[in-house]
Amino acid sequence: MTRYALTIEYDGRPFMGWQRQAHGPSVQQAIEEAAGAITGEAVTVHAAGRTDAGVHALAMRAHCDIAKPLGAFRLMEGLNALLRPRPIAILACEEVPGDWHARFSCTARHYEYRIRNRRAPLTLEAGRAWRLAMDLDADAMAEGARHLLGRHDFTTFRSAHCQADSPVRTLDRLDVVREGDLIRVFASARSFLHHQVRSMVGCLAFVGAGRWRPERIAEARDARDRAALAQNAPPDGLYFTGADYRSA
Amino acid sequence: MTRYALTIEYDGRPFMGWQRQAHGPSVQQAIEEAAGAITGEAVTVHAAGRTDAGVHALAMRAHCDIAKPLGAFRLMEGLNALLRPRPIAILACEEVPGDWHARFSCTARHYEYRIRNRRAPLTLEAGRAWRLAMDLDADAMAEGARHLLGRHDFTTFRSAHCQADSPVRTLDRLDVVREGDLIRVFASARSFLHHQVRSMVGCLAFVGAGRWRPERIAEARDARDRAALAQNAPPDGLYFTGADYRSA
Repeated sequence: MTRYALTIEYDGRPFMGWQRQAHGPSVQQAIEEAAGAITGEAVTVHAAGRTDAGVHALAMRAHCDIAKPLGAFRLMEGLNALLRPRPIAILACEEVPGDWHARFSCTARHYEYRIRNRRAPLTLEAGRAWRLAMDLDADAMAEGARHLLGRHDFTTFRSAHCQADSPVRTLDRLDVVREGDLIRVFASARSFLHHQVRSMVGCLAFVGAGRWRPERIAEARDARDRAALAQNAPPDGLYFTGADYRSA
Repeated sequence: MTRYALTIEYDGRPFMGWQRQAHGPSVQQAIEEAAGAITGEAVTVHAAGRTDAGVHALAMRAHCDIAKPLGAFRLMEGLNALLRPRPIAILACEEVPGDWHARFSCTARHYEYRIRNRRAPLTLEAGRAWRLAMDLDADAMAEGARHLLGRHDFTTFRSAHCQADSPVRTLDRLDVVREGDLIRVFASARSFLHHQVRSMVGCLAFVGAGRWRPERIAEARDARDRAALAQNAPPDGLYFTGADYRSA
């Protein structure tokens, strides 16, 4: 068996999410079926993050074990050929040691959330950004975001369906940057709770719109109660942008 | 009659181009029909540039004359409501003097062409960039581009269907900038010939791939012959990014 690490880009819109689902197409299933067709083996693909329906990836990391002696380049080319015309692309593929695990060896996960702050509907970015028409104060959003940095109980920002044992996470980065009418939120942590980024962004949007003072973010955090959440941001604007490993 | 100037964004993929066509949907027709539905008038929309099928716009400029006393804001909101779900959005709308003409008053037109220089197929950018797998030398492309700056006979870079009286144009900008695996080509001129940007980019891609020396661009230019063209770049990567006016 050879273990291959994959770097994967996808448009999340046509999929029920990363993870295999009984009721619709998933990114995992598409890649596993392509790998199965190439190798004749039952291939399982493990990812660093299990993105939700409609969430995109610029550089998801994943791995799979394959017995057939293909080599990384032929595996990548074969997967890309079979994945067409679905919007999934293998950007990179490399052999890794058998104890390298895309999920369990991961030391940091990185997301970006894109808000388009304008009145007009989206065209080229439809399904790829969250359009908010009300003028947003990105500086206030950045001030609110600082209340979430560090180690906290993130129960307020956690989906009711979250399967994690503990609601405690350490948030290493939550930056808010305005570029014209685009507001980019960058989030990094060793791991996130289910819906955590979208829930944090939903509250920051309330701060940006002036409906919440920045300090209200700390109050919502301390409430440790999903009912204290302002809103969940839609999946459209969320991108998994990368994962870190000690070595690959 | 009030004349309104529009700033328009669109995804060119579902359209036969800007201009009304008998055989398929156009951006012009969609906006004219929406304006007609709002006003009950037969509205004609004139644009700064008539983009081809599949070419996008981030800020097309256009104008129309409307008798009904709507005001710019209500016109914009009404157009955006009626244009949905088509990927056309009115970003801005303002009243302008009756002698302001989106096409004839325009003093400069700006395009960007996006090349994604990578092996993997496109996902989020499918239809929105030109993927070229062979490593491209952007510095060589920039050197080749300099041979096209200034006033020249651009017959080599002109479609057989071009309706312009003269093949002479003055190219004010043709910059090639690499950002990771994205190569952006920025082109500006008072006006362009039909297919000029795509033809210039097609030749620059030959230079980037090492199939042409940069000086070959000057030779192609001086040939004043469409047969000297390397190739036409596809519409996917082309964006109309703006138009300049003395006053608006």
